[in-house]
Amino acid sequence: MGNSFGKLFSITTFGESHGAAIGVIIDGCPAGLEIDETFIQSELDRRKPGQSKITTQRKEDDKFKILSGVFEGKSTGAPIAIEIENTDQRSKDYSHIAESFRPSHADYTYEVKYGVRDYRGGGRSSARETAARVAAGAIAKLFLIRSGITINAFVSQVGEIKAPHYTSLDLNKTEDNIVRCPDVATAEKMIALIDEVRLQRDTIGGIVTGVIKNSLVGLGEPVFDKLHAALGHAMLGINAVKGFEYGSGFEGTRLRGSQHNDEFYNDGERIRTRTNHSGGIQGGISNGEDIYFNVAFKPVATIMQDQQSVDKEGKEVTVSGKGRHDPCVVPRAVPIVEAMAALVMADFLLMAKASKI
Amino acid sequence: MGNSFGKLFSITTFGESHGAAIGVIIDGCPAGLEIDETFIQSELDRRKPGQSKITTQRKEDDKFKILSGVFEGKSTGAPIAIEIENTDQRSKDYSHIAESFRPSHADYTYEVKYGVRDYRGGGRSSARETAARVAAGAIAKLFLIRSGITINAFVSQVGEIKAPHYTSLDLNKTEDNIVRCPDVATAEKMIALIDEVRLQRDTIGGIVTGVIKNSLVGLGEPVFDKLHAALGHAMLGINAVKGFEYGSGFEGTRLRGSQHNDEFYNDGERIRTRTNHSGGIQGGISNGEDIYFNVAFKPVATIMQDQQSVDKEGKEVTVSGKGRHDPCVVPRAVPIVEAMAALVMADFLLMAKASKI
Amino acid sequence: MGNSFGKLFSITTFGESHGAAIGVIIDGCPAGLEIDETFIQSELDRRKPGQSKITTQRKEDDKFKILSGVFEGKSTGAPIAIEIENTDQRSKDYSHIAESFRPSHADYTYEVKYGVRDYRGGGRSSARETAARVAAGAIAKLFLIRSGITINAFVSQVGEIKAPHYTSLDLNKTEDNIVRCPDVATAEKMIALIDEVRLQRDTIGGIVTGVIKNSLVGLGEPVFDKLHAALGHAMLGINAVKGFEYGSGFEGTRLRGSQHNDEFYNDGERIRTRTNHSGGIQGGISNGEDIYFNVAFKPVATIMQDQQSVDKEGKEVTVSGKGRHDPCVVPRAVPIVEAMAALVMADFLLMAKASKI
Amino acid sequence: MGNSFGKLFSITTFGESHGAAIGVIIDGCPAGLEIDETFIQSELDRRKPGQSKITTQRKEDDKFKILSGVFEGKSTGAPIAIEIENTDQRSKDYSHIAESFRPSHADYTYEVKYGVRDYRGGGRSSARETAARVAAGAIAKLFLIRSGITINAFVSQVGEIKAPHYTSLDLNKTEDNIVRCPDVATAEKMIALIDEVRLQRDTIGGIVTGVIKNSLVGLGEPVFDKLHAALGHAMLGINAVKGFEYGSGFEGTRLRGSQHNDEFYNDGERIRTRTNHSGGIQGGISNGEDIYFNVAFKPVATIMQDQQSVDKEGKEVTVSGKGRHDPCVVPRAVPIVEAMAALVMADFLLMAKASKI
Repeated sequence: MGNSFGKLFSITTFGESHGAAIGVIIDGCPAGLEIDETFIQSELDRRKPGQSKITTQRKEDDKFKILSGVFEGKSTGAPIAIEIENTDQRSKDYSHIAESFRPSHADYTYEVKYGVRDYRGGGRSSARETAARVAAGAIAKLFLIRSGITINAFVSQVGEIKAPHYTSLDLNKTEDNIVRCPDVATAEKMIALIDEVRLQRDTIGGIVTGVIKNSLVGLGEPVFDKLHAALGHAMLGINAVKGFEYGSGFEGTRLRGSQHNDEFYNDGERIRTRTNHSGGIQGGISNGEDIYFNVAFKPVATIMQDQQSVDKEGKEVTVSGKGRHDPCVVPRAVPIVEAMAALVMADFLLMAKASKI
Repeated sequence: MGNSFGKLFSITTFGESHGAAIGVIIDGCPAGLEIDETFIQSELDRRKPGQSKITTQRKEDDKFKILSGVFEGKSTGAPIAIEIENTDQRSKDYSHIAESFRPSHADYTYEVKYGVRDYRGGGRSSARETAARVAAGAIAKLFLIRSGITINAFVSQVGEIKAPHYTSLDLNKTEDNIVRCPDVATAEKMIALIDEVRLQRDTIGGIVTGVIKNSLVGLGEPVFDKLHAALGHAMLGINAVKGFEYGSGFEGTRLRGSQHNDEFYNDGERIRTRTNHSGGIQGGISNGEDIYFNVAFKPVATIMQDQQSVDKEGKEVTVSGKGRHDPCVVPRAVPIVEAMAALVMADFLLMAKASKI
Repeated sequence: MGNSFGKLFSITTFGESHGAAIGVIIDGCPAGLEIDETFIQSELDRRKPGQSKITTQRKEDDKFKILSGVFEGKSTGAPIAIEIENTDQRSKDYSHIAESFRPSHADYTYEVKYGVRDYRGGGRSSARETAARVAAGAIAKLFLIRSGITINAFVSQVGEIKAPHYTSLDLNKTEDNIVRCPDVATAEKMIALIDEVRLQRDTIGGIVTGVIKNSLVGLGEPVFDKLHAALGHAMLGINAVKGFEYGSGFEGTRLRGSQHNDEFYNDGERIRTRTNHSGGIQGGISNGEDIYFNVAFKPVATIMQDQQSVDKEGKEVTVSGKGRHDPCVVPRAVPIVEAMAALVMADFLLMAKASKI
Repeated sequence: MGNSFGKLFSITTFGESHGAAIGVIIDGCPAGLEIDETFIQSELDRRKPGQSKITTQRKEDDKFKILSGVFEGKSTGAPIAIEIENTDQRSKDYSHIAESFRPSHADYTYEVKYGVRDYRGGGRSSARETAARVAAGAIAKLFLIRSGITINAFVSQVGEIKAPHYTSLDLNKTEDNIVRCPDVATAEKMIALIDEVRLQRDTIGGIVTGVIKNSLVGLGEPVFDKLHAALGHAMLGINAVKGFEYGSGFEGTRLRGSQHNDEFYNDGERIRTRTNHSGGIQGGISNGEDIYFNVAFKPVATIMQDQQSVDKEGKEVTVSGKGRHDPCVVPRAVPIVEAMAALVMADFLLMAKASKI
């Protein structure tokens, strides 16, 4: 019921913020893939809390353990189960969450939907769940790189501060700064803004841009499972995401067809388009150009301020912000966006094997 | 392989633009639902071509026929098959499409993916396929209205011309004009712009806004199948869509958490939020407030102008626009957006029956 | 909700016995497959009623029409919709079914499950539904034959009369007689028995044996979707089926391991087994030997005799047999068993493409 | 790819015989269910090795740990992950399996399908995997018992030794003896036979009968997902199973319709059938009578004898039996059959909520 993603390269995740462990089963990873555990850990490290002054100071190690599906360093075709223990389970005072509904959190909706709720640290609705996606996404990346497909995301906007278009950036520089924006000047402004917001005990939203290079032509299924529809589904399933656009996106609505259409040409080796408003996808199927997209993240709901709310009995209460939280979620969202994109691409790469005789 | 949508209230569509027929099987419509055929036809009529001067002048009647699953006016629980014959199958000259790839169409990607292509009128990638969705969506609406859930979409932007926020509009007026914008003044400007673009033999994009009212609390599945992720998947699967946002959307990224959070209060009858940046969805689950979202449509790729392209042999060619096409797709997209939203909501309404003991 | 079968080579069927039409959408047939319509019709003709004195005398032509997914004789990768009109829809007196529950039919369970029931000719529970499977299965066969895989079924038992083991039979002779048993002597006894039962206004059960030759090694998914589990699922979904066994089957339970194990040897070209108690499947995966299985069909529930039953109000009533029905279902079940086996094999053949890098 | 089972009450399993752990994620268990851990352990104990002289002497404790989805003793609606550590992972000599293919095992087919194979103890194809099913099935049982549905299985045949029909047995006595046959006299013969076979360093097959009582009317989906088709799929997915039949089964093929049909009557409270050849299922849907079925298990492939085979290079080799294995699998299969039946019933119980308005 919503905890699985993907059809052939398929994952199922589990775990709450303060339970024994979180984890994922990957079912459908082709056999024979070398599983580089160092790479998986490095991806998890990019997501983990406590990386810098602009992320939460909470410390989680996010050490993973592969329980199955890998033998002598290679995938066997059997399901790969990965577990990440929750080390930070100390008993805290959660009475403010247990009885009350934090504004713009999932407390109220879970309570009504399920009638019972693991309120500790947000339970299943905690962003901690995304660590499982990052571990699975790392394996998807290992699979994709064999076909040359690379996936990079970066922070392209924080509040009003925007980075230049990705085509003018060197995406190898994303990890050079703590906000994960490859443009140094913009990054500095973003960091300053996040720091300012943090001191105001507030939070701020932003945008992560994803870029998929070297896609084969022909990935994506027509009609309901267009490549961008699956990407959108994947991204909108990440906590705090409010929007998704690809290629020309919302801006493209303002253009005329004569401006927006991407003319084809032959570069001598293959068929290309001169412009790429299509974002590498035409008719829901990849055309070999860069696939690029934006993912909008709202400001984190947990703020270090008092807010009005109601409790389970419907009585009005004041909810106070507690704990160590991110003032801005986008720097840590970068590897999550990449992971979800990798899972989508791996799934379609497998599906494409069945498209013609 | 991408032609089905939904888990419990599930549809599978078929059909090409110039084949014998298009249609849909709805599997999972609960038994006992009164199937109002007049309503289904009225929904199809909203989508059909040739409605006004700002839509294509192509004439299609889109008369449907129910082949199964309905007995004495009620659904029986068996799959409901609906067929719409393609009456306009006259033999045309498609050589310009058969051998060449129209810019920003699906010609090239289909050719590579499948190695064979029904090029007549775009084949499976034709927007004609959406008629099947509208028919199925009409039945989903009949199911939803029993729970009080209503779904309305309207044109909120054409090019640069924007309508006011939906909360200030009377959505009952959407059908009062040919562009389907409930604000008369805006509608007139939109119509004028589309007409101007049409005379320039060009096309233009726009935005459709959807509003779902009276949703029960508790619809949507956590993690990957959040309610807005399913809505996004549904919308991004519609031809020509480039983006999806809900609630505060992309604009929300610029706000602070203290501005964006929706405080809860008790209105005496039930728990409400004072603002609705959440767009009626928290943690991926409906909270009972209005669910609203924007869907971005690019300008139609078929323009009545010459464009550079390549043919199947990779030789550069000039492609000329032919036929009768929409200068702007959004007015006819309104019922499609509603249909897809209805399918998502019907599916989650059924799934919610299984969420607790 | 139960009207779809298959994961990659996937079908969804629709239609009631006395509705406008029955049919099927095949989603996932790879593009480029030559669709031999003559072959599809010949398969449908093997299933249709009125073929001989031992089948129902009801006449149905079962002429099919392809509505989509085929262009210039080849599959395009788009869903293939096939429709078979119900020509024999004349208004009959169904009051005996409408108000009462026929013993061992689906009348009672449908009534309780759905609260509404298309009682005409059994509605959705009519075996007429299997024509859609046969049409889809014919296309699956066209796909399989490209890999050399052949599928043959035959009647191996009627009542107590049993045919010899398949390995001693020439399966090309199955269509030589009306009972579809390739052993002439046995066939004559079977025909005589069915005729005798028919004159007694009674019915009788039997067994259909299926044989799949030239399977590639490696088809089938471990754990829940073992090849024989999918075959069993497919066969048990056919009307009137009561049991499924493969390889040594139920008899195999009486053997010792030392008798039952199939020793491997190398025949110079490939690895083979000396015996084949495994029925061509080990660990749920094909090993290249013949896959063979038995499908048990109960005697048809409709008999030309009076039976005690109850009506919708729970009052006891006498139900009388009416209409033209098969005294024994197995001869016409042969192409259905083949069709379902073909659908399973086609699905696993596509899935196997994703099993290793 | 075959490691998930169920649509709404859905499980995904992982784990190899000699990896770090095996386990399962249950996605779709309704919230609010009391999770009785003592009961889960007792079910696992029924399956574990080393229970008696007629099962393998291998010792595994099969202690489980719930990692997620349960809070304060109740299911929360989040996925329930259960892990069972593999404690018996000592490094053994597996060279006889690593290089050679054991007859009637999955060694050869896995090798061809995946190109890589975790040969230790059979890897993923080990029956150890069924412990995860039993844990999940225990939770399904806890869910079903709330609706009064009970599931009992027992050993009804070992070799040629058969127990009387279930209707003459007291199923509460199944656990009274080590072979799990509720008829004492038959049990003694079965035990003697298994012991004899064991001393011969051989193995023997048998049959497990399952009985589901107090099913609601209306469970099962028509056409492809008939209740018995899902049960058959579930049972045939258990290691070593060769056949499945329900109700009258294969024997029923010998009857006339007039003998086989189950006449309806009204017992004053509800509609019943006088006989139950239907096995509680009509048209694929439960009718409220007992659902009963037989599951055929072949003799265990591992025998303590030398057998001819080939190695990975295709050279002929002698494979010798090693280790501690079951001479007959059926006593330990009883809880597995029950678990799979419970998973099927739980899934259909949830699905039935969506069948009518």
